[in-house]
Amino acid sequence: MQRPLDVLGAAVEKKILVKTKDGDTISGTLKAFDSHINVWLDDAKVLGDKEMNIGKVLIRGDNIVYISPEK
Amino acid sequence: MQRPLDVLGAAVEKKILVKTKDGDTISGTLKAFDSHINVWLDDAKVLGDKEMNIGKVLIRGDNIVYISPEK
Amino acid sequence: MQRPLDVLGAAVEKKILVKTKDGDTISGTLKAFDSHINVWLDDAKVLGDKEMNIGKVLIRGDNIVYISPEK
Amino acid sequence: MQRPLDVLGAAVEKKILVKTKDGDTISGTLKAFDSHINVWLDDAKVLGDKEMNIGKVLIRGDNIVYISPEK
Amino acid sequence: MQRPLDVLGAAVEKKILVKTKDGDTISGTLKAFDSHINVWLDDAKVLGDKEMNIGKVLIRGDNIVYISPEK
Amino acid sequence: MQRPLDVLGAAVEKKILVKTKDGDTISGTLKAFDSHINVWLDDAKVLGDKEMNIGKVLIRGDNIVYISPEK
Amino acid sequence: MQRPLDVLGAAVEKKILVKTKDGDTISGTLKAFDSHINVWLDDAKVLGDKEMNIGKVLIRGDNIVYISPEK
Repeated sequence: MQRPLDVLGAAVEKKILVKTKDGDTISGTLKAFDSHINVWLDDAKVLGDKEMNIGKVLIRGDNIVYISPEK
Repeated sequence: MQRPLDVLGAAVEKKILVKTKDGDTISGTLKAFDSHINVWLDDAKVLGDKEMNIGKVLIRGDNIVYISPEK
Repeated sequence: MQRPLDVLGAAVEKKILVKTKDGDTISGTLKAFDSHINVWLDDAKVLGDKEMNIGKVLIRGDNIVYISPEK
Repeated sequence: MQRPLDVLGAAVEKKILVKTKDGDTISGTLKAFDSHINVWLDDAKVLGDKEMNIGKVLIRGDNIVYISPEK
Repeated sequence: MQRPLDVLGAAVEKKILVKTKDGDTISGTLKAFDSHINVWLDDAKVLGDKEMNIGKVLIRGDNIVYISPEK
Repeated sequence: MQRPLDVLGAAVEKKILVKTKDGDTISGTLKAFDSHINVWLDDAKVLGDKEMNIGKVLIRGDNIVYISPEK
Repeated sequence: MQRPLDVLGAAVEKKILVKTKDGDTISGTLKAFDSHINVWLDDAKVLGDKEMNIGKVLIRGDNIVYISPEK
C-alpha cells in the first residue's frame, strides 16, 4: 500500500517545487523531510518576479500547501 | 456504516479535483491518501487562467477544503 | 441529552448546505460524517454566480463554518 | 466556581447570537453544545443586509469568536 | 512564581478589555475563565463606531489576542 | 544547552516588545510567561499612530509572532 | 539519516534569515532552537524599507514559513 509521503521518499536528492501558504513557490534539491512534512532543501530559490537564491532552507510543514518533484 | 474518507478509498487510480485553502484547484489521478487527508496525485494540473502541469504532487491535508472525484 | 452532531445524524440521506471558511456554499445529499465533521456529499453543487456541479465530494471538517439541513 | 461554558448551559432553549470568524452573525435557539463549543441552533438566521433563514444549523466551535445569549 | 493567567485570576468581577483576532474590542465584567482562556463577560459591549451592547458573552480563547484589566 | 525560551527567562521585570499576528506592537514590562509563550506585561502600550496605554495585559502565545527584550 | 532540523543544528552561532507568516524577513545570529522551531536570534534586524534593529528576539515556530542560513 502506498502512502502520500512516498512522494517525498522517492524525491530525496532530486529537485522539487514547494508552494507555501503565503503564496511563495520555492524550488530546490530535497535533502530531508519528516512526518510533519518539514523539508530541508539545498540550492533553493524563491521563484517569481524577483527570483531570490536562498541556498539551504528549512520550510515548516504546516505552512506548505503542496510539494511537487520536478519531472 | 459509511465514512467520509470512503470517498477517497473509492477514487484511488481515478481522477479527482482538490480545492485548496488558498484558492487553487488541482486535478490529477489519486495514487494514495492517509487519515490526515494528505493526498498524492499523478498527472496533476493547477487549473485556472494559467493552467500549470505539475506532474506528481503531495498536497497537505490541512490545506484542503474539499476533494471531488471526477464524474 | 442532545449533542450538536445529532444535527448531522438526523440529516443522513437528506439535503444539507455547507458554508466553508473560504466563503463557498455547497449543497448536496449527506452520505456520511465523522467526529471531525468531515462530510461526504452526493449530488453536490458549489452555489453562487457560477453554480458548479461537483457530484460526490469530501469536505474537510476544519474548513467548515456551519452545516444546515434543508427545510 | 463558575466556568465560561456555564454561559451556554444557562442558554439552552433560549435565543443566542453567534459571531463567526468569517464575520457572520447568526441568531437562533440553542438546542445543544459540546466542550469544543460546537453549537446546534434551531430557527437560525444569518443576520445582515441579506437576512437568510437557515432553520436548523450546526456551527463548528473553532470558527466561533463569541456567543451571546439574548437579553 | 507568577503565571500569565494570574492576570485573569485577579480580574474576576472587574472590568476587562478583550481584543479578538478579527479586530473587535469587547469590554465587560469578567465572571469566569478557563485554561484555554475562554472567558465569560457580563455587561459586555463591542466597542467601535457602532458600540453594541451584548450583555452576557462567552468569548473563545483561541480567537483572543490580548486581555487587559481596566485600570 | 540554551533554549529559545531562555530569552524570556532573562527578561522578567525588563521591558520587552511583542509583535502580534494581527500586526500590533505592544511594549511593556514582562511579569510572567509560560511554555505556551502566553505573556503578562505591566505598563503596556499598544504602539503606533494612536499609542494606547493598556496597563496590565495578558497576550495569548499563539497570536505572538516575536518577542524582543529592549536593549 | 538526515532530518530537516539538522539545518538549524548546523547553523547555531551563524547568521540566518527567517521568513514569518505575516511577511516579515528577520536576519540574526541563531543562538538556540527547539523542536517546535521556536528560535532565538541575537543582533536581529527586521529587513525591508524601514530596517529595524531589534537585538535579541524569540520568534514563535508556528509563525515561521522558512529559515535559511546565510551563505
